[in-house]
Amino acid sequence: MGRVYLVGAGPGDPELLTLKAYRLLKEAPVVLYDRLVDERVLALARGERVYVGKGEGESRKQDEIHRLLLAYARRYPLVVRLKGGDPMVFGRGGEEVCFLLRHGIPVEVVPGVTSALAPGLPLTYRGLAQGFAVVSGVLEGGGYPDLAPFAQVPTLVVLMGVGRRVWIARELLRLGRDPEEPTLFVERASTPREKRVLATLGQVAEDRVEVASPAVWAIGKVVGALAPWILKRAWAEV
Amino acid sequence: MGRVYLVGAGPGDPELLTLKAYRLLKEAPVVLYDRLVDERVLALARGERVYVGKGEGESRKQDEIHRLLLAYARRYPLVVRLKGGDPMVFGRGGEEVCFLLRHGIPVEVVPGVTSALAPGLPLTYRGLAQGFAVVSGVLEGGGYPDLAPFAQVPTLVVLMGVGRRVWIARELLRLGRDPEEPTLFVERASTPREKRVLATLGQVAEDRVEVASPAVWAIGKVVGALAPWILKRAWAEV
Repeated sequence: MGRVYLVGAGPGDPELLTLKAYRLLKEAPVVLYDRLVDERVLALARGERVYVGKGEGESRKQDEIHRLLLAYARRYPLVVRLKGGDPMVFGRGGEEVCFLLRHGIPVEVVPGVTSALAPGLPLTYRGLAQGFAVVSGVLEGGGYPDLAPFAQVPTLVVLMGVGRRVWIARELLRLGRDPEEPTLFVERASTPREKRVLATLGQVAEDRVEVASPAVWAIGKVVGALAPWILKRAWAEV
Repeated sequence: MGRVYLVGAGPGDPELLTLKAYRLLKEAPVVLYDRLVDERVLALARGERVYVGKGEGESRKQDEIHRLLLAYARRYPLVVRLKGGDPMVFGRGGEEVCFLLRHGIPVEVVPGVTSALAPGLPLTYRGLAQGFAVVSGVLEGGGYPDLAPFAQVPTLVVLMGVGRRVWIARELLRLGRDPEEPTLFVERASTPREKRVLATLGQVAEDRVEVASPAVWAIGKVVGALAPWILKRAWAEV
């Protein structure tokens, strides 16, 4: 019976893989991977690569992924289940762990750099934000999230929210956030094609902002703290 | 003029360093590090090591850290500022970036595995938690956080909260959370001395739970999702 490692692939840049993820990609005879895993990361895998990706919010295939994990765990001593960002933030990693444990398969989680942190923005800041929250714009199955429990959190990071940005912004305004609040979209964070788009929450609600998916969307006063420099990808060329 | 890298050291296990953090530790002539950086990680640094740690909530020394960063950036081509977990989650990384940029020093942020993710718990789970929040039990300067904006978030991860766990639990109950809600403390997550303590929010509020600092404290129904297995460090020996 093989052991399954649920491994975070990080946000894109292969150098943001952990040493453990890198080692496991080299050792594993098989890697089951998702749609959002960067191809440069995937190229590091030495074993068989099995694509089990789903579209945003698509859930039909989850049972099939479970079946595949079980089948490969019975065939190989070591199986890597590779997920973009961190394996336990969205993406149903928890369900996969439960499924495997119920079937007696040993599981280990290898945390990764979550996409929410890929832009390198301060999510907390003295006097501005005592904490942060992370939500997804698309629920498993395609549903809309209930934003009410998150509406008052000082820094809100939205993943998979580009396609629904207008709805999300209007919902947050309805729930009491300030239309003048600064927000930042970071497209393809940590990749060579990273692009930053700054806009107030009100501008997004009025559908005046162009952004391409995938992007991390940070909402909160922390965006203003770095205002003079916020649009630079790295602050390495000041 | 040197370039300063704000680098996440991850939660403790040296294998949870990113490849980039590992490379920079080998290249940098100097590393300025905090109290919460694991000594096994620190041992990887080839250059001079400068301890600039502070006690929990201690803030007097922040100006001194800024002065040291500036001085080393003027002396060396490459300076690593190493912080436990991710450099932009608590720990005043944002202030350090602003200070350096204002002084014309190029800065680059290298995200890391945040301590909040070190236990490998699912922070989101279909039907149980659509998102999560991270707060600190101790503000910069030692103050108590305002938990009201976070009280309704389905999964709440508290860092630096062990010493104030009774106050935090009572505050969350007062703000409407359920005393029967499961919570999990993970002491020294990702290290060989990792230890897990399961308790309801009500038990913590009644001061019936013994925990040692530092620990990550996860509060929410997701803790119950893995209930039969939650106390195992890795689920690798089932």
